Order: sequence, then structure tokens, then C-alpha cells
Amino acid sequence: MAYLDHIHACNNANLSRYARFRIGDLPVGAIRSEFASALTALGDSFIRDENGEYGFGPHIKTIDARNQTLIEATEALCQQGVIKHLHGEKFDIRNRLSDDPLCQLDRFAMPYFGCRSWGVHMNGFVRKADGIHMWIAKRALDKPTYPGMLDNMVAGGQPTGLGFRENMIKECAEEAGIPANLAEKVVAIGTVSYLYETDEGLKPDVMVNFDLELPEEFVPHCADGEVEQFDLLPIAEVAEIVRNRFDFKFNCALVVIDFLIRHGYLTADNEPSYCELVTGLHRSLEP
Amino acid sequence: MAYLDHIHACNNANLSRYARFRIGDLPVGAIRSEFASALTALGDSFIRDENGEYGFGPHIKTIDARNQTLIEATEALCQQGVIKHLHGEKFDIRNRLSDDPLCQLDRFAMPYFGCRSWGVHMNGFVRKADGIHMWIAKRALDKPTYPGMLDNMVAGGQPTGLGFRENMIKECAEEAGIPANLAEKVVAIGTVSYLYETDEGLKPDVMVNFDLELPEEFVPHCADGEVEQFDLLPIAEVAEIVRNRFDFKFNCALVVIDFLIRHGYLTADNEPSYCELVTGLHRSLEP
Repeated sequence: MAYLDHIHACNNANLSRYARFRIGDLPVGAIRSEFASALTALGDSFIRDENGEYGFGPHIKTIDARNQTLIEATEALCQQGVIKHLHGEKFDIRNRLSDDPLCQLDRFAMPYFGCRSWGVHMNGFVRKADGIHMWIAKRALDKPTYPGMLDNMVAGGQPTGLGFRENMIKECAEEAGIPANLAEKVVAIGTVSYLYETDEGLKPDVMVNFDLELPEEFVPHCADGEVEQFDLLPIAEVAEIVRNRFDFKFNCALVVIDFLIRHGYLTADNEPSYCELVTGLHRSLEP
Repeated sequence: MAYLDHIHACNNANLSRYARFRIGDLPVGAIRSEFASALTALGDSFIRDENGEYGFGPHIKTIDARNQTLIEATEALCQQGVIKHLHGEKFDIRNRLSDDPLCQLDRFAMPYFGCRSWGVHMNGFVRKADGIHMWIAKRALDKPTYPGMLDNMVAGGQPTGLGFRENMIKECAEEAGIPANLAEKVVAIGTVSYLYETDEGLKPDVMVNFDLELPEEFVPHCADGEVEQFDLLPIAEVAEIVRNRFDFKFNCALVVIDFLIRHGYLTADNEPSYCELVTGLHRSLEP
């Protein structure tokens, strides 16, 4: 296999299966025809317009009305078995990162509506005499999603009401026991984006990423039970794991590849797919 | 204006005006209908296939034959005034960075055929007590292209036969008088790509980029006459120039924006177009 296989694995979506889901003029999501049928069968809360695109009924005009409609619809569809589970935590729905939220939706219902979501990921690393080493997390074996798979040192979803950096520093404490005086040194370094498809629907996700250079003596510990163990591995070893296997959670492999490129480990002189990797990591997510 | 305006300025191409130019099965370029007419009027060296795409005549099968055909065609079209000038220096034509060259073409004829080309750009910077400062070049006033505009510290086209890092180190010496022992510290950090259109045709370009952290006492000097002066500016001042003006050569502004993002100056918390900037800097260049 090759690094590029991770890009393809994260960009597996067949967009011809989806119709747009709009709020007003804003294309905030994308839904499959079977989910669209279930939605419109609920009554007049959701409509199909003359362009074959979907949205709220014209009488649903406010954030509160949208939120109430989404709560009722997702609970009804969960009872029908159309939506498998609900999570309880709410994510914001918005068109662009910088827009005000248009409404909130249950975290597990996001892919059914194909709405973009944002998360934060952090590369923790140490510069030793023999080069860069990366802290790699192994996900707890009892996590509901991707148990036991490799992960970036710290990562989390982006909840309502927090700044990205603020959220990152909070996650640093919870997931890896990194004290605030160290976590304050995180450097924002860009995003990685992909268009992933699951049985549930579409996941157009943006990972807002940070690097954190740590002192050699610091040893992380998991405070919230989400990580089984942390290992500090030479960059070449991390690169080989990504190049040869699918041991990392699918999207975390992309964050590692981005790190390998930004720190000069993968280059135009040693990696045949260099240009395709860089563009592939930064997919535009127009729904 | 906004940072995003630089992305739009570099991605001004209207692809509906172009037909593919192929070598064998490989889509290596894109040409406008008026240039296509001039090419096929030269005889049987260039043909239009049943899909409306263009390529060499079927009897032209080798690199040498393609090179000879391109030399004759570009000279003839230059005499006709279809091609404005020729440069003399040759660039490789290839489908992907890692492919062997399929033939060579005069540097100034590249946009007429819409072939991808690769260059190297370098961000030279100094970490001072009050933060990062960037070395900014001002292009010589007698340069034929973009005289007097601001530029990255070092940049150059990618010629046949050199590695990217090797080319970068060579350009460091020629353009800024950076000795090999300093230039060896360049770190490859990724690419920036864009699809630009001029009167001549299409420029699908990839900049292969490097960072170089320099000691505070080093002062660059231009060895080849291509740079008028170098200035060491605080990162905030460089950011304001890019945000407010088009003083930088069009593609060099993108290399600066990429630097501002990778070094934590522009973030998801302070730049509304953060996600669009990151994806916009890394356009996929399928012709």
C-alpha cells in the first residue's frame, strides 16, 4: 500500500447518491434518497423543492423552530430505526466555520444530514538528538468507535460555544494530562479535510490541527479513560506504520501524513505522490 | 480586500475555454481553440481526436520526435505571431511530478500548451525576541516579469535534471548569497498549487516550498541581479501587506499566506476564511 491509500480511504464518497440539504440559500448538507423519503414522510416539516433539493418547510423560520423540528424528527426516525442511535451531545450546523450556527443537531445524526463538522487534532512531538519522535495514542479498548486503533496524541470534536484553541487546550488536559503551561504552547498549523461516507450518510469533516513540541521528560497520562496508552515513537517508525498499515483511525492517518510533509520527512524528492498527497489532504468540502 | 482575494487572483482560469492536450493517454495540458487551430494548421504533426481533444500525430512516437516537432512548431508559431516570444530555456513536460519527462518545451511556450510546471519557493525567517520576522525580496526593476514587486526570499523554476532540494540550495546561493552550510538547513514543508490564466493560456503551477530559519546576524545579498533589495519585516507587517495590497507577485502572496497559517499567525479563531484559505492554497490541478 501507499500513503495515498489513506487519502482515498477518507474520500470514499459517491456524491451522485446525494441531494443537497439547504437552510435558506445555504447548502449546509447532503442527504440520500432513502433518508430524504423518511424525512418528508414525517409531515410538512421538511420539503423537496423544484430543484430536487431538500430543506425545512417554509413555516420553520427561526433557530428555535429548526432545533425543535430536528429534535422531534431525529427522535421519530430513531424510533422507526432509520437513524440507528442518538448521542445526546449537540453539534452546531453552519455553512462555514466563521458563520453563526443555524441550528443544532445530535452528534450521531450529523452524517444522515451530511452536515460539515469540525474537530481539533494535535501532533505532540519531541525533538531528540536523533530526530523527531511523535507521541501516538492507542484508543481505549472499550471506546464505542474505533477501539484499540492508533490516534493522534489529542483529538476531539468541536462543541458549541468554545474557541478552537480553547477546546484544544481543554482536550490536552482531559486526554493526555498536559498541564496548561505546556498546552499553551500549541501552534495552529492548518486544517485537513475529507469527504467520507458511511452506512449512515456523508461526513464532510474539517480537522483544525495543532503541533505541540514537548520537553523530553514529559510523559502523558490519560485523564478521561479514552486512551489505552501513549507511545513515543521515532518519526520513521510512525511513517512506516502509516505507509504499510491501516492501524490508525482513518482520519488520524491524514493528520500524521500532514505532519510528515510539514516537517520535511516526506518531500518532492523522496515521495512520488507528494503533490497528490498535499492536495488530497485539503479537499474542498462544497456539499 | 482580504487574504482570500489572492487565492481568487491565482485561480482565475475559465476551464470551459480549453480542450485537453494529451500525450498518449496522459492529459498533460490544455489549449484554447484559437491556439488549437494554429497548431493543426501546421500540418499533420498535431491532430484533434474524436473526443475533441488534441495531441501529436500518430507517427510521432518518441521523445526525440516530440521535441523536434515542438521546436519546429513553436518557432513557426512565433514567426506567425501566435506565440509572442520564446525564452531559450527548456522545461520538462510530464503528467505528474514523479513521472519521467515526456518531452521538453520552451519555458515561454508552456502556457500556450497549458502544461503543469513546478518551481521552488523559500520562506526565509528569523526568530527574534519579539517574534518571527520574514525576509522579503523586492524584484529587480529591470526584470522582464513583475519588476519591483515583492517576492519570497528565494524562488526559481524547476529545470530539467536537478532535484528539488538541490535546485533550492543552488537558488539560495544565486539569489540571496546564502552559503551552503546555511542553505542545507532548508526544510521541505509542502506545496501550493493554483490554476492561473493569462493572455497566452493556462498556467497550472505547483510551488514546491521550503522554510529556512536564519540566524539574526545573517544578511542576504543578491548574487545574480534578480533582486533589488531584501528587507527583514515583522510577520505582522508582512501579513498586513498581503491582506491589504497586491504588492507581492501574484503567486508569492500564496506562499506567504501558507507560511502565516503553518506558523500559527492566521488561525481558525482569528481568520473567518481559514478553511477556505487552506483548501484554496492546495488546488488539485487535473487538466
